[in-house]
Amino acid sequence: MRIDENWLKLKSPDFSAYNALDPEKKLMLVGADPFFPDPCIPDHVINATKRALDEGKTHYALDNSYAVPELKEVLVQKLRDFNGLDVDPEHELIVVPSSAFGLYVGIRICVRPHHGDEVLNIDPGFAENFNDVYQMGAISVSVPTYMEDGFQLRMEELEKKVTPQTRCLVLTHPNNPTTTVYSREVLEELGKFLVKHDLMVIVDQSFERSIYDDKEYITFATLPGMRERTISVFGTSKDLGLTGFRVAYMVAPKPIIDILKVAAFNYVGPTNTFAQYGVAAAYKDPSYVDDWNKIYEYRRKFGYEKLNGIPGVEVLMPEGGFFFWVNVSKLGTSIEIRDHLIHDANVGVSPGTWFGSNGEGFLRIMYGTMKDTSKYEEAILRIVQSLNKLPLKA
Amino acid sequence: MRIDENWLKLKSPDFSAYNALDPEKKLMLVGADPFFPDPCIPDHVINATKRALDEGKTHYALDNSYAVPELKEVLVQKLRDFNGLDVDPEHELIVVPSSAFGLYVGIRICVRPHHGDEVLNIDPGFAENFNDVYQMGAISVSVPTYMEDGFQLRMEELEKKVTPQTRCLVLTHPNNPTTTVYSREVLEELGKFLVKHDLMVIVDQSFERSIYDDKEYITFATLPGMRERTISVFGTSKDLGLTGFRVAYMVAPKPIIDILKVAAFNYVGPTNTFAQYGVAAAYKDPSYVDDWNKIYEYRRKFGYEKLNGIPGVEVLMPEGGFFFWVNVSKLGTSIEIRDHLIHDANVGVSPGTWFGSNGEGFLRIMYGTMKDTSKYEEAILRIVQSLNKLPLKA
Repeated sequence: MRIDENWLKLKSPDFSAYNALDPEKKLMLVGADPFFPDPCIPDHVINATKRALDEGKTHYALDNSYAVPELKEVLVQKLRDFNGLDVDPEHELIVVPSSAFGLYVGIRICVRPHHGDEVLNIDPGFAENFNDVYQMGAISVSVPTYMEDGFQLRMEELEKKVTPQTRCLVLTHPNNPTTTVYSREVLEELGKFLVKHDLMVIVDQSFERSIYDDKEYITFATLPGMRERTISVFGTSKDLGLTGFRVAYMVAPKPIIDILKVAAFNYVGPTNTFAQYGVAAAYKDPSYVDDWNKIYEYRRKFGYEKLNGIPGVEVLMPEGGFFFWVNVSKLGTSIEIRDHLIHDANVGVSPGTWFGSNGEGFLRIMYGTMKDTSKYEEAILRIVQSLNKLPLKA
Repeated sequence: MRIDENWLKLKSPDFSAYNALDPEKKLMLVGADPFFPDPCIPDHVINATKRALDEGKTHYALDNSYAVPELKEVLVQKLRDFNGLDVDPEHELIVVPSSAFGLYVGIRICVRPHHGDEVLNIDPGFAENFNDVYQMGAISVSVPTYMEDGFQLRMEELEKKVTPQTRCLVLTHPNNPTTTVYSREVLEELGKFLVKHDLMVIVDQSFERSIYDDKEYITFATLPGMRERTISVFGTSKDLGLTGFRVAYMVAPKPIIDILKVAAFNYVGPTNTFAQYGVAAAYKDPSYVDDWNKIYEYRRKFGYEKLNGIPGVEVLMPEGGFFFWVNVSKLGTSIEIRDHLIHDANVGVSPGTWFGSNGEGFLRIMYGTMKDTSKYEEAILRIVQSLNKLPLKA
């Protein structure tokens, strides 16, 4: 079969290990899907989607922004009020079927395939970004971050990794998996770095609505001079929990949105029409996320204390999102410990190596899954008991 | 701004001309969206989608085929009964958010970007396929078809255009815009050609359910030896009218589906979850399409007679889909005649040049739009009146 041999080398996370879990007893802290597998979307969102179906909103959504009018209006307001971004919806906004896709086309527009172009990826980071860069025929360059810094960016690491071939940087903010909410100081330094090297930045704001301890959250494009070099990608799966709706959106300078309206549209076409009405309803009244954040807040403190009580385990208090990034390197490798928890505790967690080469020795443990908090607590207690059995490595 | 300059050259159809149409009086025969803009989806499909929402089917659809179980089961049955394809749903099937996307990744997997690889595109053909090939850094090679052949394939044209750099051929079956249902004889010849040159084929079956005059419709992958070199793409937008649902699926040999599960998923993620339940319901009872086909049948004959009555205009009886491919070359260029109909008749039709270099001198006129057949008739009569005013070119 004559197929692109480079694509044969692609690998995705191997989920088969989780099949070993006893389905009756297993507790999964893996996917970033709020309260999975339990129903969790509030009535006003469900009803708005159903109403759109009843009203025959089933045709292509081919508006200039590929948005239904209601959603476009709501997004302009949300971007202004929540993000501090004033957006011209006709020229600076496009609705796409997922932030995964937004990230892909956002990076792709900056990169010339098979041209030696390089993309700076924060590592640990969101694994799909590494794959995206590889798939488009560019080179992903890892920029390490360190637990001792709370995984903030070190400018000297960026300066070490930038070359004349560098085209852009990808920033997941807050970071997935480290939960880091980047500080104003760090983001301003990053801005100077981007200007100095004339780089674009693709910012993934998927978890922007779950930020703890009243920490300041900065939408990168609002920083002075950054609007013109920022492609912002906003999802609705993580912070609004609308994973199955498949609606995301991008904000970027007009020349980029102009191209995306052709190129992104050609790849995938428009976004589900009636789901957009549900998303509009969610943004009109996102107060349910405040309730979720209270649940996350409890679970965050519970897990933080329990996990840090295990000899040889270290975890920082999460700053955003709904997961822990747990250092287990004194007990074994990511895969060893993940497998141990599968077999010994019937609990599924993600090995850190799914999140880049600097993820070795870590686990990502999701605390946003399952509605029943007592099940979550049980999962954590099982993890504690199971890891307590392991000796510290010499 | 440092962006891929090749993407700057991308152009999409320019819809601005249609904005000149008087919104009160305009009649649009442009988009391939059944009965647009009128509600048309039957209750059992709407209700199944709403039920899924009520039942909390709003999480990621992360099954092995990225399908919800109900849809997977229905697709296996539909592929067997309707297409004559026995499919292993775990290894030969993947659900994707659009046939546009299926075509893109289907072509992409055959092609090495910026490597001089060539793709054979039937011309006139579906415009996105030309763009796809350009966007992925390969070369689209047009294979002409001719009205005098009913736009069937000529093997000598294929032989003329194939080179050692050719990797695959894209076949829209029935063809969009020519409506051609390829004959068994032609498809068998095509099969020999593919074997001889060791090519893959990507087959778009978007309009497979609207075939007229009991013409034999062949799913290409069922031909002897073709299964292993065919990537079949099935949409639900055109023949089931589920344009806003964004659900499509692909059937291909296991090694290809294995790669798509990683690569396609990485690009865009899963497909809308609750919409899949609506699609399952549509396939369980697609009898409404039979009703639609009766409407199309009437409109097809009406338009065929009226349009062929215009001096200098020639149209073949459509074989599939719900549009005419109209030769107006004796009256002017595609754009000239399109613009004339906009200004003179307040009717929107598509210029043939949107469908490849061999589309010059043609118009695509959609007869599947608008529920009210009398509006369609009025649009055709306005076209007749308006084209009758034009002198034959010398």
